[in-house]
Amino acid sequence: MHKRLLIPGPTEVKSDVLKQQAKPLIGHRPKEFTELYTGIFDKLQKFHKTKQWVTVPTASGTLFMDMTARSLVKEKALCCVNGAFSKRCADTIKACGKEIEKIEIEWGKAVKPEVILEKLDSGKYDTLTLCHNETSTGVRNPIYEIGKAVKKEHPDIMYVIDSVSAMGGDKVIPEEIQCDLIYASTQKAYALPPGLAIGFVSDAAIKRCEEVPNRGRYTDLKGLYDYYQKKQQTPSTPNVSLLYALSYQLDRMLEETSEGRHKRHEEMAKWTQEWAKKHFEMFPEPGYESITVSTIKNTKGKSVAELNKELAKRNYMISNGYGDLKEKTFRIGHMGDWTTADIKDVCSHIEEIWEL
Amino acid sequence: MHKRLLIPGPTEVKSDVLKQQAKPLIGHRPKEFTELYTGIFDKLQKFHKTKQWVTVPTASGTLFMDMTARSLVKEKALCCVNGAFSKRCADTIKACGKEIEKIEIEWGKAVKPEVILEKLDSGKYDTLTLCHNETSTGVRNPIYEIGKAVKKEHPDIMYVIDSVSAMGGDKVIPEEIQCDLIYASTQKAYALPPGLAIGFVSDAAIKRCEEVPNRGRYTDLKGLYDYYQKKQQTPSTPNVSLLYALSYQLDRMLEETSEGRHKRHEEMAKWTQEWAKKHFEMFPEPGYESITVSTIKNTKGKSVAELNKELAKRNYMISNGYGDLKEKTFRIGHMGDWTTADIKDVCSHIEEIWEL
Repeated sequence: MHKRLLIPGPTEVKSDVLKQQAKPLIGHRPKEFTELYTGIFDKLQKFHKTKQWVTVPTASGTLFMDMTARSLVKEKALCCVNGAFSKRCADTIKACGKEIEKIEIEWGKAVKPEVILEKLDSGKYDTLTLCHNETSTGVRNPIYEIGKAVKKEHPDIMYVIDSVSAMGGDKVIPEEIQCDLIYASTQKAYALPPGLAIGFVSDAAIKRCEEVPNRGRYTDLKGLYDYYQKKQQTPSTPNVSLLYALSYQLDRMLEETSEGRHKRHEEMAKWTQEWAKKHFEMFPEPGYESITVSTIKNTKGKSVAELNKELAKRNYMISNGYGDLKEKTFRIGHMGDWTTADIKDVCSHIEEIWEL
Repeated sequence: MHKRLLIPGPTEVKSDVLKQQAKPLIGHRPKEFTELYTGIFDKLQKFHKTKQWVTVPTASGTLFMDMTARSLVKEKALCCVNGAFSKRCADTIKACGKEIEKIEIEWGKAVKPEVILEKLDSGKYDTLTLCHNETSTGVRNPIYEIGKAVKKEHPDIMYVIDSVSAMGGDKVIPEEIQCDLIYASTQKAYALPPGLAIGFVSDAAIKRCEEVPNRGRYTDLKGLYDYYQKKQQTPSTPNVSLLYALSYQLDRMLEETSEGRHKRHEEMAKWTQEWAKKHFEMFPEPGYESITVSTIKNTKGKSVAELNKELAKRNYMISNGYGDLKEKTFRIGHMGDWTTADIKDVCSHIEEIWEL
């Protein structure tokens, strides 16, 4: 019995989208693959209203953390850490042998431009990393304001954003954010199976690569770029089945429009968070709540694990809190192709089970 | 109109296998995922008659080249190069900032134990890399003989094998090969879509990782190992759809048995190569012909590009020669779930088109 996923990714995928993956394969060198891949390229640029180059490596979004370290960080990165995934990025850069300094912000609070500027003014960093939407806390960082403030004072810094659980639902227009790399995975707000990552890359980022030695191959952003420029293909074999599904889903997304999709996510978040405040409290700092995942303080001390067991009988699944936040919070993912009507339904089940 | 792929990967995938990818998704942290993933682990060990740990990262096989460099090479690798993919491995290790020395062998010739031993006796290398089955030339290197000779004299060297286009069809029993890492991709002899890599890893390789700093995250073999030991899951989100298909296909493969699958590939190769010798010549050195792809010298100067256009009308596709071997050779992939009857059919079309 299938449990419909209202977890903060992987999210539910429509059956017609899933079926795209059952289509017969093509090779990745003939012209028909080039058509598929450049088609996806064009659709991604159109949906995100950008002229930035975009790449779709066969990997989870985590690959882009390694790619940031291996291809963009020259010596030292400033890493904003306010949750598990921004911490993962900082740790990855360090694990690749590059220097980092963390701005550590209490979980549940957002990263503000001022704290970053204060640090950057020391001038020691060549790269800035942060998480758009902290899946662990449900905090949405103000990436547009940060971009504007940072790039005005420090135009040469590489501004790298993990938007894994936001892009495709929340508004992401790279040029307006003024970012150099912003990346996501297919299994979150794009509402596809996992297996591909998607990254928008500025011209400055490609230039930066030339200054960074030992980029490797699978982690070499410039290798992906050069191959695309030459052949409009990928240097190693890509996941063709999932690219079929991505191409199909992007048509659906363009039909809905970027604005429509963004608005639907805002509506789902608004409804969920009003419901949450009626019965509990929200975990994130007010004004910085994610529009793809609501992290709710378990103020009534209910058992989230038990709740999920009961929800499973009703073919639903939500998420417990992340790490230390387990049972102290719970998370409802409202990303991808879900609608407010679906969220109302799962919340009415929660009300029944917990007798709210 | 679908062209059936007799190229050296991606190969044709059965429709019931493809359909597994259309199944509804599960999360990658609940118990049901652990069951799926450990099930695949057990089936892979069973099929390959091994106790070695196995990992299935979401990536193309190329990731394992970066992983070799980042996680296993301490200072310097000896890289046997007799084709495009063994060259890619050597170049990747260098691109990761590690030293390499190449043993360059003429394309079409095999790597023999003696030339390796001669080099290794200088004692400067901590890792040895080679390609089991050179997709570019159709040469099958004697990995069992090399393992035996090398490990007798140099037990501490990491013996790393790219078996991308052989494993799953040709015989691969890691303990008998005495290798430390042997890897493949799903889209070749396993007859699945691309998107996952499969690697068998020795205990010594895991120990070696501890001596190699700056392994990163996506390229950290030990990170995958430690997470599996702790949770029997993967540290980042895996391609669940393709893992469904892998699990299903491994059941089919176990039903056929390792020996049965190996024998079927030997038979396809024998028939194809006898046919090739009747009309043309084989490109590889005699006795070292691949059993998954036949590379045939185009001794009659026919146009391979034109042949493929005609074959396309008959819903078939074979491969031109690789790189400089284009038009000088052509390649018939007979890997995965193809049978000798299918090969006979495509070859009869070639005879008709080329009036052989």
